[in-house]
Amino acid sequence: MERSITPKGQASRARLLQAAATEFAAKGFAATKVSDIVKAAGLTQAAFYLYFSSKEAMFAELVQEFREQLKHLASAGAIASGLPAEQVPVQVKANLQAVFAFLGTMPELTKIALVESPDAEAIKSEMIAMVIENMKKNQEAGYVRKELVPEVAAECMMGMVDRLCMKWLVTQDKDAETLAAEMADVLMYGILA
Amino acid sequence: MERSITPKGQASRARLLQAAATEFAAKGFAATKVSDIVKAAGLTQAAFYLYFSSKEAMFAELVQEFREQLKHLASAGAIASGLPAEQVPVQVKANLQAVFAFLGTMPELTKIALVESPDAEAIKSEMIAMVIENMKKNQEAGYVRKELVPEVAAECMMGMVDRLCMKWLVTQDKDAETLAAEMADVLMYGILA
Repeated sequence: MERSITPKGQASRARLLQAAATEFAAKGFAATKVSDIVKAAGLTQAAFYLYFSSKEAMFAELVQEFREQLKHLASAGAIASGLPAEQVPVQVKANLQAVFAFLGTMPELTKIALVESPDAEAIKSEMIAMVIENMKKNQEAGYVRKELVPEVAAECMMGMVDRLCMKWLVTQDKDAETLAAEMADVLMYGILA
Repeated sequence: MERSITPKGQASRARLLQAAATEFAAKGFAATKVSDIVKAAGLTQAAFYLYFSSKEAMFAELVQEFREQLKHLASAGAIASGLPAEQVPVQVKANLQAVFAFLGTMPELTKIALVESPDAEAIKSEMIAMVIENMKKNQEAGYVRKELVPEVAAECMMGMVDRLCMKWLVTQDKDAETLAAEMADVLMYGILA
């Protein structure tokens, strides 16, 4: 069925997903009706059921897509071996910025996926597992201190991303670049004078 | 009325609070009945209503007490000025250990206060506000890097404590001392080699 969707149909489908993310984030999943979603998207209920079997299926699709993209981003955290030491901070900042830029693009969806969804903790665990892998590679390559426990450092990173994101990114009070630079400063050099 | 509680009565009251924390954490607040609490405490419904007006009042008391104690601990994070630089890491570790020790004493209550309670985010915000104050004092005293944004560093700390606590402390997989040392290492010196 997907195969036969016209370009116009694809645009409608995308509009429905975007509207749903906004409605879910504003009202919560339970209180959002299909009629709210189609109204926000400027479409009809018939259009909705052309592309989605139910509100639940649509929600699952939103979260699943978010999850795939975040996994892809988290997997990029291993620093290419051979990078000169002075380039490492630039790379760490760039990686964090990519993550924050993604999380800030659709703040509503971010709030759903990282807070409201029953999969929120599973999504974070998946990210943490990739950060642990990257951390170990970066330790072997000599970029990250060998005494650190990778599992602990990864939980710390997730905790930082999570709170900074909810406090300043999804509220649009700070942009991805600023937050990435501020978090990288704490993460890379610690707080001690 | 409080004034007339006998020592035996005080012990019963404490047993009810302890049992309630365990039941709330295991079943959630809504699914826990007063009958579950009194059964777990080995007491009667009559005893319960001698000390608490309702399940809600008891829950509020548990969370309120937790909140007061945590606030007290967080306020201790400013490093006494005049401390020799080499003692600062010892002090930071000790402060973190006190926080983790408190959070680990009644893991059920910690889960309620930091996750399940509607006040969870308010409790964290209160802690963060104190950490920001301490951070500023520690910057002025020259213990913490002046380039750091105190608000950002404080959110990062809260994120770390939160995740490490839920991952290893309330599950009793790591003790307060180990977690404090591992978090202090990341927090004080950062991850870069």
